[in-house]
Amino acid sequence: MADLLEPDEALSRVLLAVPPPATVHLPPEDCLGLVLAEAVLACADLPPFDRAMMDGYAVRLVDAGRTVTALDEIAAGDGTSRGALQSGHAHPIMTGASVPAGAEAVVAIEQTTRVGDSVRLPERIRNGANIVPRASECAAGQPWAKAGEIVTPLTLAAALGVHTARLAVHQRPQVAVIATGDELAAAPSQAGQIRDTNGPMLVALLHEAGLAARRQVVGDNAEALLTSLRSLAALDAVVLTGGVSAGTHDEVPGVLSRLGAEVLFHKVAQRPGKPLLLARLGRQLIFALPGNPLAAHLCACRYVLPALRQLAALPHVPVRGRGTLVTALPSNTERTWFLPARVQAGSVMPLPPVSSADLVQPHQANAYIRLSPGAVALPAGTEVDYTRIGADAWAS
Amino acid sequence: MADLLEPDEALSRVLLAVPPPATVHLPPEDCLGLVLAEAVLACADLPPFDRAMMDGYAVRLVDAGRTVTALDEIAAGDGTSRGALQSGHAHPIMTGASVPAGAEAVVAIEQTTRVGDSVRLPERIRNGANIVPRASECAAGQPWAKAGEIVTPLTLAAALGVHTARLAVHQRPQVAVIATGDELAAAPSQAGQIRDTNGPMLVALLHEAGLAARRQVVGDNAEALLTSLRSLAALDAVVLTGGVSAGTHDEVPGVLSRLGAEVLFHKVAQRPGKPLLLARLGRQLIFALPGNPLAAHLCACRYVLPALRQLAALPHVPVRGRGTLVTALPSNTERTWFLPARVQAGSVMPLPPVSSADLVQPHQANAYIRLSPGAVALPAGTEVDYTRIGADAWAS
Repeated sequence: MADLLEPDEALSRVLLAVPPPATVHLPPEDCLGLVLAEAVLACADLPPFDRAMMDGYAVRLVDAGRTVTALDEIAAGDGTSRGALQSGHAHPIMTGASVPAGAEAVVAIEQTTRVGDSVRLPERIRNGANIVPRASECAAGQPWAKAGEIVTPLTLAAALGVHTARLAVHQRPQVAVIATGDELAAAPSQAGQIRDTNGPMLVALLHEAGLAARRQVVGDNAEALLTSLRSLAALDAVVLTGGVSAGTHDEVPGVLSRLGAEVLFHKVAQRPGKPLLLARLGRQLIFALPGNPLAAHLCACRYVLPALRQLAALPHVPVRGRGTLVTALPSNTERTWFLPARVQAGSVMPLPPVSSADLVQPHQANAYIRLSPGAVALPAGTEVDYTRIGADAWAS
Repeated sequence: MADLLEPDEALSRVLLAVPPPATVHLPPEDCLGLVLAEAVLACADLPPFDRAMMDGYAVRLVDAGRTVTALDEIAAGDGTSRGALQSGHAHPIMTGASVPAGAEAVVAIEQTTRVGDSVRLPERIRNGANIVPRASECAAGQPWAKAGEIVTPLTLAAALGVHTARLAVHQRPQVAVIATGDELAAAPSQAGQIRDTNGPMLVALLHEAGLAARRQVVGDNAEALLTSLRSLAALDAVVLTGGVSAGTHDEVPGVLSRLGAEVLFHKVAQRPGKPLLLARLGRQLIFALPGNPLAAHLCACRYVLPALRQLAALPHVPVRGRGTLVTALPSNTERTWFLPARVQAGSVMPLPPVSSADLVQPHQANAYIRLSPGAVALPAGTEVDYTRIGADAWAS
């Protein structure tokens, strides 16, 4: 086992190989889930004018308890310029509208009595009541969000509210998935052929991480793979599956060498996923995952997603927890074993595959249990540690 | 306050108004995150043939320790029909390939020595070694996934692996967002105009929930809103914002009445979000949210998303927790107050808005604190309950 990298060392090398996050400037609507690369300064006051907080009348304080004359109504979006409000008058005003100069409060419609053009105002009117003063939430030029914050639905709404045309954010990684193998077919027609399951699975894992990945299927053909990789050179990462074991048809290592990519490691002391390979070509990371679906899944969850999250400056440490085994865990051999499991309400149900290619048994996994080399069997009822997988599996 | 619905009663009425989830049949790739409406039966064996688990030689057990003759190689995807393997011979075979009849094990390439066409086999060969027997993971016609399961990346890969063309799943709700208000402008040019912030915010909240919503902006014009709603009649839900208070320009209640929609409630004893309205037209739910952005946010998180999740048969109870106040909480008046907060590592930081329309202060909220009517002020250091919001906020 001396030539195999330990899993923790492999993860360290993956994270070390990730280039610094790139910064792009995007409209706020396109920034959901991305990380702010710079503080955001308000380029306009918020609110941009003294804003009415409810439907009512814009009034002078001296008119409290009096009957005044109703002027024209001010609606939200009304841009008419008006003189300052004089005592003895009141403007009907709608929620969100701009309070006219001179008005010191907005009185709620329920607190008034109107007959024709006459409006009876309440006895007590608080100065500034129901008015949000211009710039009270944020003044133009002031920072209102910090670098490192993740853009939430409220953040993007706030950005639009303060008229921010673009936000400086860390780019969403651009990724392609290539499944390799002559046995892969869109609609298997002959014995020995199987459908590509890894491609859709990896695209789904990336989708859960907020990434839209392109997908290709390439046969065990070095030239085709080379052409494909060259066409994807501008992407941040390429995730290959299949073609990294020692078989004569496993073209990936040779193709990477012809491409000029630097292989950072190949083979990890883990089960499944031993043949994992990581290469780098300029800024691009190339992950070559085994063709075995569960191995591809483990490698994607454990290495690819943390790398892509780090590239987007997102937290990349998965949530860990401890729960009680519902069924026994077998003993382990000499390689670290990542065993799929379903965690629910403190219970941990191991979902060992029937074979290394089995997806049926583990298909509801939301965690992996890590078994150290030589770990002894554990009976049901034992407490074990687990690492969560899935869209909600990342510690903040 | 007698005419206002209590927030818990409002939520009950929302959930009661949700029709039963509809079932559709979709390709596995399109089912990520959806709930299975029926058990899934395998329509082919998995694996579909005795599959080699590694690169090596397909052999007879009687040849252990002998030197045998290498025949033609069997690659993954190779559909050549062959006679049964005879003693004295071995087929080189690749991972994932179909093991020929007669072969009782696959011996790893590292355990053999090859000179020309002669292959020396190891002394001990286990029966069935490195072969995954046909149908051992799942036999054709057998159920391998249950109704109610959420489709994971592994589920869809397993479905493709067992040649399932379509899965019966509960439909992803089809939703549109309509922001109403004459004050809304794409690029504000005159005083009193503001950008639509609610539309993009609601689209983002729905996106976090896995839903792609269409977005429209309609002025305070009953005819335009009516036309718009009629064109969206086929959708599961429409989320309106603005136009539900008592102002003369608030067209929504009148338009809903002309449309023939049944108003299930209007106004809730909560802050923010008092004007919330729920209507139903056939199967369609129509949520009319206040135009105030934070009110729209709270109503979307507390009422709209749980309804849409229930419609998709997904768990719809948000994660709740308890943490320590970092700063003091003010006392509350007579209406239930949902106060945005940021929860991190057991600490709860209230993020009260400067005004009811302020998004800047609360923009990093990932939770709401609920203050009961008349709740007293609480000093920093007090333990409080919170309800999480966001993509990872749903209990499973």
